[in-house]
Amino acid sequence: MDNPVLDRRSGPLEQAAHDIVRAGQRMDARAWVPATAGNISCRLPDGRIAITRSGCHKGFLREQDVITVDGAGRPHDPGHRPSAETLLHCQVYRRMPDVGAVLHGHSVASTVLSMIEKTNALTLRDYEVQKVFDGQTTHDAAITVPLFANDQDIARLAGEVEPYFGAMPAGYIIRGHGVYVWGRDMDQALARLEGLEFLLACLLQRRTLEGRTLGA
Amino acid sequence: MDNPVLDRRSGPLEQAAHDIVRAGQRMDARAWVPATAGNISCRLPDGRIAITRSGCHKGFLREQDVITVDGAGRPHDPGHRPSAETLLHCQVYRRMPDVGAVLHGHSVASTVLSMIEKTNALTLRDYEVQKVFDGQTTHDAAITVPLFANDQDIARLAGEVEPYFGAMPAGYIIRGHGVYVWGRDMDQALARLEGLEFLLACLLQRRTLEGRTLGA
Amino acid sequence: MDNPVLDRRSGPLEQAAHDIVRAGQRMDARAWVPATAGNISCRLPDGRIAITRSGCHKGFLREQDVITVDGAGRPHDPGHRPSAETLLHCQVYRRMPDVGAVLHGHSVASTVLSMIEKTNALTLRDYEVQKVFDGQTTHDAAITVPLFANDQDIARLAGEVEPYFGAMPAGYIIRGHGVYVWGRDMDQALARLEGLEFLLACLLQRRTLEGRTLGA
Amino acid sequence: MDNPVLDRRSGPLEQAAHDIVRAGQRMDARAWVPATAGNISCRLPDGRIAITRSGCHKGFLREQDVITVDGAGRPHDPGHRPSAETLLHCQVYRRMPDVGAVLHGHSVASTVLSMIEKTNALTLRDYEVQKVFDGQTTHDAAITVPLFANDQDIARLAGEVEPYFGAMPAGYIIRGHGVYVWGRDMDQALARLEGLEFLLACLLQRRTLEGRTLGA
Repeated sequence: MDNPVLDRRSGPLEQAAHDIVRAGQRMDARAWVPATAGNISCRLPDGRIAITRSGCHKGFLREQDVITVDGAGRPHDPGHRPSAETLLHCQVYRRMPDVGAVLHGHSVASTVLSMIEKTNALTLRDYEVQKVFDGQTTHDAAITVPLFANDQDIARLAGEVEPYFGAMPAGYIIRGHGVYVWGRDMDQALARLEGLEFLLACLLQRRTLEGRTLGA
Repeated sequence: MDNPVLDRRSGPLEQAAHDIVRAGQRMDARAWVPATAGNISCRLPDGRIAITRSGCHKGFLREQDVITVDGAGRPHDPGHRPSAETLLHCQVYRRMPDVGAVLHGHSVASTVLSMIEKTNALTLRDYEVQKVFDGQTTHDAAITVPLFANDQDIARLAGEVEPYFGAMPAGYIIRGHGVYVWGRDMDQALARLEGLEFLLACLLQRRTLEGRTLGA
Repeated sequence: MDNPVLDRRSGPLEQAAHDIVRAGQRMDARAWVPATAGNISCRLPDGRIAITRSGCHKGFLREQDVITVDGAGRPHDPGHRPSAETLLHCQVYRRMPDVGAVLHGHSVASTVLSMIEKTNALTLRDYEVQKVFDGQTTHDAAITVPLFANDQDIARLAGEVEPYFGAMPAGYIIRGHGVYVWGRDMDQALARLEGLEFLLACLLQRRTLEGRTLGA
Repeated sequence: MDNPVLDRRSGPLEQAAHDIVRAGQRMDARAWVPATAGNISCRLPDGRIAITRSGCHKGFLREQDVITVDGAGRPHDPGHRPSAETLLHCQVYRRMPDVGAVLHGHSVASTVLSMIEKTNALTLRDYEVQKVFDGQTTHDAAITVPLFANDQDIARLAGEVEPYFGAMPAGYIIRGHGVYVWGRDMDQALARLEGLEFLLACLLQRRTLEGRTLGA
């Protein structure tokens, strides 16, 4: 279990690496992982976290670009360098025991909306697609997506996010940076990412049309 | 005819499942079926309706994600769970005997325009592409696309739509939700969906440029 | 030469059909041929014109969807039905002896700009991409793209276009309808279509930003 | 080494041609090389520069469309015609010894922003994606992208750019024309191009929303 070379041949890690490579291709096709931005992870049955290596393009991942870390974000292979943001993935897995996959992407819509919104959240209301998120059964409730200030100190950023778990059905956004979204497995996480990005694209279009601030 | 397992091997259902899978891929390529949104159906020669199963992503359908229901939306296999919106498909088939395929998609344009429009319809005028719709032979007539309030009670929503059949050459839109479009076969339904979405994209662009309300 | 069935096996028609199918796929990938819109043609060495059949989707053409017409737009096979707009293609070939391919597409940008522009032309200036058009060697000249009112009477529309040949380096636009672009072969025609659509996309974006009319 | 025909079989040129073809396909998929716009180059280990031939579409390059020039932009094969802008590539390689690949693309965002900006630069600030550029370790610094007036006299244009080397971490933009971006190898150059285009898309969206000039 401590030997990532042997582990790589085990079923669950292979499956996770396959799912992560495919998720990266999908996110790239929608232009949500520009340059080397974004990161993607899965929780393995034994509790390890499979996550993309730092610095590679998420649209062209190879299975060897997926490494494993423990719940505190430490790589099992000391030669591996995980992304600094690995801690944010670990936090989601620690706080949400049913979560099996976490996605972090950078879209134009999430970047721009989070930079111009003056309040601390974006509010979604009256969209049928809201029903893709946990606990939502109707379009006519409001969903709140919290916005956090960007910070190169990821532990400090995680501290800001910590109190919001349990009240983020659609994930959260770091200003000027991107979204964090999760699901019980990669398919659900991808569906929710698509749902959130669709809703953000709608919000951005409406603000452009209406010239009003969302928070007002 | 009552055994969906045997039926699945029959020609018409196989053809319908193939057409539905392909239509889902096409709609996904244009980003019209985010998350698990949208649904797609065909009428079989024996009157059954082949329709996508609830909850799956329309861009990654497998043929087994296509199930059959009767004209009242009841699945032939009691283990199958059709989408709640199956009733809206059944309504189109009941009211329009020549229709062979129905598409429901969620685009940014249809969602946003339907949420900001204050009147009960969008009006299309002077577009050459209008000629793709039934009975339209020129660009210089007006086509009206009715807007209905979204409702989680689908039977009630169907009741609102009911009086408009015969006066919806381009389909209809549920506010904040998406479009319903149909055709004599899947190719025609897809062409009309593309035509309508193109026209909605033009409308949205014009409103952005002109800062005027469409209904005014 | 009068037998289209035998002709179909000849080299030039096969090549033209191949080029037309590929051009349709390319235009579809950019969403410039929604529904069954658009048409595509090549001039054959013997003077016949190979053109898309009426009513099919240009993104999914098969070689048998390409038919031949004479210089007056009459099909060589009386069973074939060419698009009504075939006359506009024939006009380009008649007036421009060096032209080998004509493309007609419907983009959101050309549709919207042509509907809101109050003067009779769009003017392009200071764009490097202008150099793709005949006789243009610098960005700092102005190119004029004439706008014609849409008309279901294609012969009358052709009459409106007629005086402008020789002064349309980038093609022309029918209001609410789309662009006509040509080149010595399909590759050049496609490059010019891309160039024009790129410039129209820039114009549309600038108008959105600046809130000014182009003609002013 | 002086025989490009023999050289073509050598490893480094083959690799460069492969990388250039792939980069062109990628840029085309994002619509950054309309018509025959753009050019792409690599530095070979022996100092020659492999660059795209003049006049071909960058999305459909064949390996034979890649030619070699010396550091002054002269083709090794006198029958080859390099693009006039080859000099701008050579300048980057001369001034930046660690650079292995240069990309020049034409996007709608870079074209439009560079034409409407009244100051001599675009400023990027508070975007996480800024970290993709040389020497950037945080989002909260400002990056400046210089804007140069377009000029058909490329030597004169190069003279304008010359003083800015060392202060262009994200590349530069020629007004109404496009971006120049570079990296130690093609993968890094492509990642930076994606990063810059992402940031320009964000700027353009913000200007549209806010109706303010960037330079103000």
